[in-house]
Amino acid sequence: MSESVSKQAVVTMRWREGCLEMIDQRILPARFEYLAYRSAAAMAEGIRAMVVRGAPAIGCAAAYGVALEALALAGASRAEFDAGMEQAFTILAASRPTAVNLFWALKRMRTVWHEGGHRTGVELAAALLAEAHEGLAEDIRINRAMGAFGAELLADGARVLTHCNAGALATAGHGTALGVIRSAVEAGKRISVIADETRPFLQGARLTAWEMVQENIPVTLITDNMAGHLMSLGEVDAVVVGTDRVAANGDVANKIGTYMVAVLARRHGIPFYVACPLSTIDLAIADGGAIPIEERAVEEVTGFRDCQWAAKGVKVRNPAFDVTPAELVSGLITEKGVVPEPNRQRIRELFSLA
Amino acid sequence: MSESVSKQAVVTMRWREGCLEMIDQRILPARFEYLAYRSAAAMAEGIRAMVVRGAPAIGCAAAYGVALEALALAGASRAEFDAGMEQAFTILAASRPTAVNLFWALKRMRTVWHEGGHRTGVELAAALLAEAHEGLAEDIRINRAMGAFGAELLADGARVLTHCNAGALATAGHGTALGVIRSAVEAGKRISVIADETRPFLQGARLTAWEMVQENIPVTLITDNMAGHLMSLGEVDAVVVGTDRVAANGDVANKIGTYMVAVLARRHGIPFYVACPLSTIDLAIADGGAIPIEERAVEEVTGFRDCQWAAKGVKVRNPAFDVTPAELVSGLITEKGVVPEPNRQRIRELFSLA
Repeated sequence: MSESVSKQAVVTMRWREGCLEMIDQRILPARFEYLAYRSAAAMAEGIRAMVVRGAPAIGCAAAYGVALEALALAGASRAEFDAGMEQAFTILAASRPTAVNLFWALKRMRTVWHEGGHRTGVELAAALLAEAHEGLAEDIRINRAMGAFGAELLADGARVLTHCNAGALATAGHGTALGVIRSAVEAGKRISVIADETRPFLQGARLTAWEMVQENIPVTLITDNMAGHLMSLGEVDAVVVGTDRVAANGDVANKIGTYMVAVLARRHGIPFYVACPLSTIDLAIADGGAIPIEERAVEEVTGFRDCQWAAKGVKVRNPAFDVTPAELVSGLITEKGVVPEPNRQRIRELFSLA
Repeated sequence: MSESVSKQAVVTMRWREGCLEMIDQRILPARFEYLAYRSAAAMAEGIRAMVVRGAPAIGCAAAYGVALEALALAGASRAEFDAGMEQAFTILAASRPTAVNLFWALKRMRTVWHEGGHRTGVELAAALLAEAHEGLAEDIRINRAMGAFGAELLADGARVLTHCNAGALATAGHGTALGVIRSAVEAGKRISVIADETRPFLQGARLTAWEMVQENIPVTLITDNMAGHLMSLGEVDAVVVGTDRVAANGDVANKIGTYMVAVLARRHGIPFYVACPLSTIDLAIADGGAIPIEERAVEEVTGFRDCQWAAKGVKVRNPAFDVTPAELVSGLITEKGVVPEPNRQRIRELFSLA
């Protein structure tokens, strides 16, 4: 279903008439369409194919995938219900490996399922749907809180470089990195954005640029390899990015190319911030070396969609993420405040806050 | 004229029946076609539109542009000949601003013209065509000499990252950076190449990958933002790139993104070499800050050819080159030998060699 895009807030996913509708982010900005999801298997495929992407959005979508399966199974026997649910969790967990929010959301849904052992299928399905709804609402609250803390880090007039899309489209709304920018703009600061196009999936050119244009926030698009040049010209005041998983020591996994931006920012004395809800911090991972890095299809690198330009016969690497060591991170912007120069100790303290 | 591509050496440009034929590098590797050039104006447009690109190739092509104009004017009066030639030099000099080889080649052609004041138009045209031919032959000799010096820097088994295309297609043949790789392979070393795709014009994906596949040299394609990740995994042993202009202090202008690669290489202790014929060193430019950087069309960044993907309304920057400071350069590979850690003194000494 194609619809005109309002200048209102981007609604990445919405519950309508028993199904979850998600903007098809593969075809933005050429077309703005919602796709309807009715099962865990369809949702897992939507996540794998990047109809929805961005760590927090993937977490929210996976929760709805579980809820959809529970609704479909609500009338089944308890054994059938439990077997179907187990299968749903398995297929959703296998959709993408790097973003920890996926596993965090599935864990929350599993808790609701297991704690509801005495309930009927219908009651359980209702509880799981309510939990998915709560995940969505909570994500927006958290992004607003991060935005408020992060906005204080940006000066009036700041030119902020970002990589990939950590915007409303990557979350339930407002965004993580772009949430910081939005909150700064709402606070009256004049912010302009420099968007890395972010090959190979072009989230910067297609999604970040689109979100900023929708809201009349000045945005300049560059290819990924121009960031260093602009920094050397003194045209970048700060970097803000999102993340798919942060290790216990503060190492940051994020979209491929983030590491390059961090190294360049350090060379030029430009602060490098990571907008990071606590759900993205994985205390079970000691450091970034242990974060699984997804390798995606060859065709993403040899071209873009139907436009294939590379020489035939060339081999390809396509790691979707890289790891930025904690020492290059000026601060983690979380919903509980900013963690400057994150390390194991400071991250542990963050989780001990009320 | 479309032709099958042999596995023989790539012939970027060739003189045939009174015109210069050049491979149309805009459409490689999808189609392999030569375009015929018969005037300075057509040649200037071919350079501007990047039918031919790469600093040494641009220099050779511009020389032929002058020769073609002289041939067309050979029967004219001396006043007409001189006026036409002046116009040819002006239009060719305005085709692209960054590569110094263009201006260096035009200066050589101007010298032949001015020193031939006593000759007939026919004699002058013949002399100018001979000079263009000599420029082509000399470029290959120089690339072979650079290749021999550079090959000694690469260990057997080396995995060499390169950015853009500094291959046969960027020169009269053999290539500068890829010439070093070819010479190492000819010397019996097992070399594998990692090719940055090199947005926005995709010279790496289209041209470097194509050249290497033609010669069965193992080549792996990555997006530009993956270079740092592969370095952090220990998968890159050396970097070799070409250059469009080197300042008197050793600062290197080359395709946008080269600076980023150099910064990453330094962080990881990986040697960063620049293959650089003496004709690319501009002693009149004190440092890289004074090298003019071309800004190209918006449509190159918002997509690729007819494939346009960026959000409408976004602003764009499109600098075609950046400057790598000399302190990040491990060595300049020239036809007179390797200049380690180049600086003003060492470059001056290079030119004082016999």
